[in-house]
Amino acid sequence: MGKMRNIKLVIAYDGTKYHGFQEQRGTGLATIQETLERILASHFKQDIQVFGASRTDSGVHACGQVVNFYTETRGIPTKRIPLTINVLLPEDIVIKTATDVAEDFHARFSAKSKRYRYVIYNSRVPNPFYHRYSMFEPRLLDLEAMREAAKYLEGTHDFSAFKGEGPPVKSAVRTLSRIDFDVSGKLINLFFTGDGFLYNMVRILTGTLLDVGLKKYSPVQIMDILESKQRTMAGPTVPPSGLSLMEVYY
Amino acid sequence: MGKMRNIKLVIAYDGTKYHGFQEQRGTGLATIQETLERILASHFKQDIQVFGASRTDSGVHACGQVVNFYTETRGIPTKRIPLTINVLLPEDIVIKTATDVAEDFHARFSAKSKRYRYVIYNSRVPNPFYHRYSMFEPRLLDLEAMREAAKYLEGTHDFSAFKGEGPPVKSAVRTLSRIDFDVSGKLINLFFTGDGFLYNMVRILTGTLLDVGLKKYSPVQIMDILESKQRTMAGPTVPPSGLSLMEVYY
Repeated sequence: MGKMRNIKLVIAYDGTKYHGFQEQRGTGLATIQETLERILASHFKQDIQVFGASRTDSGVHACGQVVNFYTETRGIPTKRIPLTINVLLPEDIVIKTATDVAEDFHARFSAKSKRYRYVIYNSRVPNPFYHRYSMFEPRLLDLEAMREAAKYLEGTHDFSAFKGEGPPVKSAVRTLSRIDFDVSGKLINLFFTGDGFLYNMVRILTGTLLDVGLKKYSPVQIMDILESKQRTMAGPTVPPSGLSLMEVYY
Repeated sequence: MGKMRNIKLVIAYDGTKYHGFQEQRGTGLATIQETLERILASHFKQDIQVFGASRTDSGVHACGQVVNFYTETRGIPTKRIPLTINVLLPEDIVIKTATDVAEDFHARFSAKSKRYRYVIYNSRVPNPFYHRYSMFEPRLLDLEAMREAAKYLEGTHDFSAFKGEGPPVKSAVRTLSRIDFDVSGKLINLFFTGDGFLYNMVRILTGTLLDVGLKKYSPVQIMDILESKQRTMAGPTVPPSGLSLMEVYY
């Protein structure tokens, strides 16, 4: 057995048909991790375990998910992995780049921060080409109020009010370094950059900002919601279709 | 029975899951026409027959297909049709506008010209978000040669060499008034405007322009292909995923 290689992949996927990133052993449900491990194992002719930076949920997409896996030195050169493996993968999963990394690199534990995007299609009439990749909102939104509310969310806070039911965490304190708006015609793109995200956090943050845009809360009430630490105080969990993991920083 | 209304709809659809626009009686296959007729009939509580401007093929999309249908004067006002019917339609079909038109308006026979778009995603690495809406071409394309070749296609010609196997036509002479290129990053959008299109014509025109981009033909050879009137002389029929009906002119 040769020296082990640790290979980092940047991958993109349309998550519509998948039950999230993480393998769900024994369920028979298709996940990104299971699909990737199966194709890599068939190519490298050995069991492959893939470690992902983020456990994206069912229906959530990625433009820049990062994974790593170990394999023996035999096999194709790392730089040829994208072209070789992409033809074996289903068309909704793509390897963008492959690089050799140090033995102790771990896609999840080495990550410093991540950037997510939530897309709202804001128009009276829906668009069938954005249905898979956005949330449709036909009502008029007060974007200025949403931008103001976002400022109260930026920074280091206890985000308990913005955590969905899921695995328990030691602390709900996270640093949301910035929320950026990119409005292009009917598309409202919200970018969330932070050192870590709680379960469903981006979708609840977006649902709360939407409620501000719909005048259900005033921007300053974001402070009360944060202080309450109560999930019931924040807005709804918006659909997974609008969410994409854009980039993982190391 | 009241006075009849003739209603024109502009519709958009993601054609991926449909067996084309036109109803295929007795086959049980889902088509755009069948879906639209079923939903309109359930709302208007009467049989509805829909006439479409273009019989888009299986997997082909539309941003601006036009249809018309007759109904009695009862029922909702025309301007309320989009919002009312869109909630009943599947998410991959959307009514953009509805207007009352003269009794003799026919979506297909009244059409003066149409505009189609073919999207090529030209990159070494595919993009999972464009897979449903484009053709993936990883090889380098000579865009200047393609633009030059397109000039030979513009105008009034016998397009027999660019007609797929399908229903017979009296004449294959059509006027292709213009082919426009819109290159935006990795996306090459080809727009074809003309008074009428033969079966598979846009897909064969695109396949032939692609072959020019790949240096299989020189631009001037387009003239030989047109003159040959032989389908075997032209390029391949590219996949339906890249094709959309953009607009119908009256």
